Amino acid sequence: MSRKYDVTGFGSAIVDVLAAVEDQFLLTHNIAKGVMTLIDEHRAAQLYDAFSAPREVAGGSCANTMAGLASLGARGNFAGRVKRDRLGTAFEASMRSTGVTYTTAPADAGPSTACCLIAVTPDGERSMNTYLGAAREFGLADVKDDDIADSQAIYIEGYLWDAPLAKEASLAAIKTAKGCGTKVAFTLSDPFLMGRYRDEFLSLLGDLDILFANEEEAKALFAVEAFDDVLQALRARNLIAAMTRSEKGCVIARGAEVHMVDAAPVARVVDTTGAGDQFAAGFLYGLTHDMGLAECGRLGALAAAEVISHYGARPEVSLKQLAGL
Amino acid sequence: MSRKYDVTGFGSAIVDVLAAVEDQFLLTHNIAKGVMTLIDEHRAAQLYDAFSAPREVAGGSCANTMAGLASLGARGNFAGRVKRDRLGTAFEASMRSTGVTYTTAPADAGPSTACCLIAVTPDGERSMNTYLGAAREFGLADVKDDDIADSQAIYIEGYLWDAPLAKEASLAAIKTAKGCGTKVAFTLSDPFLMGRYRDEFLSLLGDLDILFANEEEAKALFAVEAFDDVLQALRARNLIAAMTRSEKGCVIARGAEVHMVDAAPVARVVDTTGAGDQFAAGFLYGLTHDMGLAECGRLGALAAAEVISHYGARPEVSLKQLAGL
Repeated sequence: MSRKYDVTGFGSAIVDVLAAVEDQFLLTHNIAKGVMTLIDEHRAAQLYDAFSAPREVAGGSCANTMAGLASLGARGNFAGRVKRDRLGTAFEASMRSTGVTYTTAPADAGPSTACCLIAVTPDGERSMNTYLGAAREFGLADVKDDDIADSQAIYIEGYLWDAPLAKEASLAAIKTAKGCGTKVAFTLSDPFLMGRYRDEFLSLLGDLDILFANEEEAKALFAVEAFDDVLQALRARNLIAAMTRSEKGCVIARGAEVHMVDAAPVARVVDTTGAGDQFAAGFLYGLTHDMGLAECGRLGALAAAEVISHYGARPEVSLKQLAGL
Repeated sequence: MSRKYDVTGFGSAIVDVLAAVEDQFLLTHNIAKGVMTLIDEHRAAQLYDAFSAPREVAGGSCANTMAGLASLGARGNFAGRVKRDRLGTAFEASMRSTGVTYTTAPADAGPSTACCLIAVTPDGERSMNTYLGAAREFGLADVKDDDIADSQAIYIEGYLWDAPLAKEASLAAIKTAKGCGTKVAFTLSDPFLMGRYRDEFLSLLGDLDILFANEEEAKALFAVEAFDDVLQALRARNLIAAMTRSEKGCVIARGAEVHMVDAAPVARVVDTTGAGDQFAAGFLYGLTHDMGLAECGRLGALAAAEVISHYGARPEVSLKQLAGL
């Protein structure tokens, strides 16, 4: 392969800010327990000030996948917008420390860097408050056609459809990719997105080479209740469908080809955050390194198993070493 | 369908004899806990005498499937040998009470009717002691070509390979079926059989229209460790493969066609005995009633869910009603 990057990823550049709190904190600050709520900048600043000894780690679904790809030894490039502020600088440093190329220019003005303020209660529940900020400002001007042409694949997170400019940029990136033989991978990201963009995502399928979806997302996309109906619907499309089913493992289909790969063993499931992100990392590594579909699925399962065995959405060990690559 | 029977089944005619015992009973009588042990007639008589207040119910894998088919409303015919003794008469009566036709002539001489002496300890464990007796004597003369020609399908249990005469009879039945357009269904029955008959079963695949196997049996057949390898191996064969994976549901494949059907919900799993037998019943019902493969799988899953929700290997309610047929 003579292309510079294995994968260029497009996603929200978000810093996770975690703090241990008591349940009373949730009541005092009116935080809904165990779910994700979108918040504005004012409230983000308020909560940030209320957090004591917060821990900041770079997050974001696609960015997590890129970190996983780097851990596997792939050459990754991430595109996503931060602001030139403290969190933005931290995100950049963290992204680059993983070995991923990251050159999207930070914004000098406008909303602050996106953050997800996560209140972790003693029972281990994570109550998330997401401020999308600068990540929403990623736009057409940030799409670098040369990078796309120099990548084996691009990978786009469905979450971007919630940001009109980033969606427009994503569609432009897909068009460019199709013009230069770069494969297009997309993740449905969240079942709730189907409520808002189901028809758009269905139309998009014709432009995709690889679709990532967990079972709930895929059922919501086709508005069906049985997984078998999802399987049949996706086999009829001209793409690779990589469907994850938690402890039931994953199913990979490309027309006549169908594979079922078991979940990799995990001694103790600690935190399922990032399982889908890391599955995508393993799968995309395999796909950009000439592996068969079943092998891609096994690598995805392995990466997912690593990340759910500890807190946090990014690998804690070298996936390259873990996979014996 | 103008044929008289939907399915003619060939299997061991066994009466299950269950008794509640204390753990001390297992020690006194040298019974291995929780497993199945083959025993001879003398020991069967000894244990039978030692059982207090035993409960007798007709059993046998294929016979259980035939009972399930009858409960679904199918027209079934069972072939298997008992002796004309008390247990044999009980087996005949029980089989016929389910609505299944059963005309194999009982033996007037030779070994007694097969029985499985099951010692149930207070912890719910079942320690099985099987005496194959008269069931082993099922032979060529018991294969009725007219019945085979008048059935949509025959169904044979792999257990019969442990009885040379019954195996010879089964092979003859398969040959007859192939000569008159009757479909041939076969179950691998038990992973341990692969140790003894793996090569024979592999050769047999070419003569089968439908293969039933649970995951362990199928992996043992092809000597592979990953389920995906089983799937690929069976898709390359010219048959319908119905593979059960316990709580992971079932996978049905016929060449290009692949379906994944979830396990049907069960409030509480009480006793998994008979799950595979009843899955086969549901599946064969669907197949002999012009249903699609996914629908056959769903019916199998439903029948299996019913039988594991209570003690015993045969349905306790009308499966026809449960399935809304």
